[in-house]
Amino acid sequence: MTAQLYCFGESGNAYKAALALTLADMDWQPVYVDFFNGGARTPEFRALNEMGEVPVLIDGDTTLTQSGVILDYISSKTGKMGGRSAAERREVLRWLFWDNHKLSTLVGQTRFLMNFLPADKRPEAVIAFNLARLKGSYTTLNDHLAGANWMVGDQVTIADLSCAGYLYYPEPFGFDRKDWPHIDRWLDQIATLPGWQAPYDMMPGNPSDRA
Amino acid sequence: MTAQLYCFGESGNAYKAALALTLADMDWQPVYVDFFNGGARTPEFRALNEMGEVPVLIDGDTTLTQSGVILDYISSKTGKMGGRSAAERREVLRWLFWDNHKLSTLVGQTRFLMNFLPADKRPEAVIAFNLARLKGSYTTLNDHLAGANWMVGDQVTIADLSCAGYLYYPEPFGFDRKDWPHIDRWLDQIATLPGWQAPYDMMPGNPSDRA
Repeated sequence: MTAQLYCFGESGNAYKAALALTLADMDWQPVYVDFFNGGARTPEFRALNEMGEVPVLIDGDTTLTQSGVILDYISSKTGKMGGRSAAERREVLRWLFWDNHKLSTLVGQTRFLMNFLPADKRPEAVIAFNLARLKGSYTTLNDHLAGANWMVGDQVTIADLSCAGYLYYPEPFGFDRKDWPHIDRWLDQIATLPGWQAPYDMMPGNPSDRA
Repeated sequence: MTAQLYCFGESGNAYKAALALTLADMDWQPVYVDFFNGGARTPEFRALNEMGEVPVLIDGDTTLTQSGVILDYISSKTGKMGGRSAAERREVLRWLFWDNHKLSTLVGQTRFLMNFLPADKRPEAVIAFNLARLKGSYTTLNDHLAGANWMVGDQVTIADLSCAGYLYYPEPFGFDRKDWPHIDRWLDQIATLPGWQAPYDMMPGNPSDRA
């Protein structure tokens, strides 16, 4: 049965799920959510996810939300990208939480404010504050990758997909690859995995739809 | 063997771990981290946790960071508060991620900016922006609890402890219990569990130390 991923191209959290489904060789198809016209706030969508967010994954009788849960489900179901031992699995989960707590939340918000709001509605003080905080998160990630090819262990895991997801987007959000050489190398390495595609090639919807 | 929890009273993320250890009847003791004098940024602390954050739990040979991972470990080790089935466990994990993504990150930052910075250094535009966003998170939580006594299933889980942790602090962060009746009832209910204590009674360090 083909899994359904509720998503839209601009969502980095949905992209993480799309990448994991693809790299784990699961059969899936996207279901477009028109986020920029309120598609994640309708009563119908709230009935699917009370949190009012994509991604939502429907796989047979199972409905899941939160990218971290979806990534964990995909790796548990397929036996891929979850780490080789209990200790590695805890490390994977640790970086998934760090990503949700310190990286993707902040990148996602900052990118939205800088790119998807009209210029006269951008809260410049919030953007400046976030950009300063993001340097701390990029530093933690870059330092970790200085001593490792992958986030956990010696092969790709869902921790890589979670932490990398937003960093493939082309819009500005205070991240310049050349400032972070270890992150840069790691992003190139993930992009060589069979099946990898850039976010707007993998899910429907992109900023040019609203131009 | 007594588990060691690196913590300080003001940290809601450490409080979640302290509560879980206590409610699960694990033997533990706090190790004070002098966060406000840079204690989470020293080379020694970074060697313990490259993320530069509390909580850190050391239990025998196991060292863990990120409150979500520590909560998961405690419930796995003790068989308590993890949910009754695979579906409930996924729901628990889902609310842990939501909390890290949408609630605790924002509450923690907003409370810090409003209470622990000198008045002339408070970024008022950021605080106002966060307070508006937090209403969305409180709404999601309150709506969820309108139809349920606990976050997942019919008994307390680590999802309750994660989502509730920061909400027991006395400092202002845009949260008034009387505005959110279902959250209010639920917080009272958690506080009746044997062993429950308020944050500053459970861990060393509190704002009066710096007064």
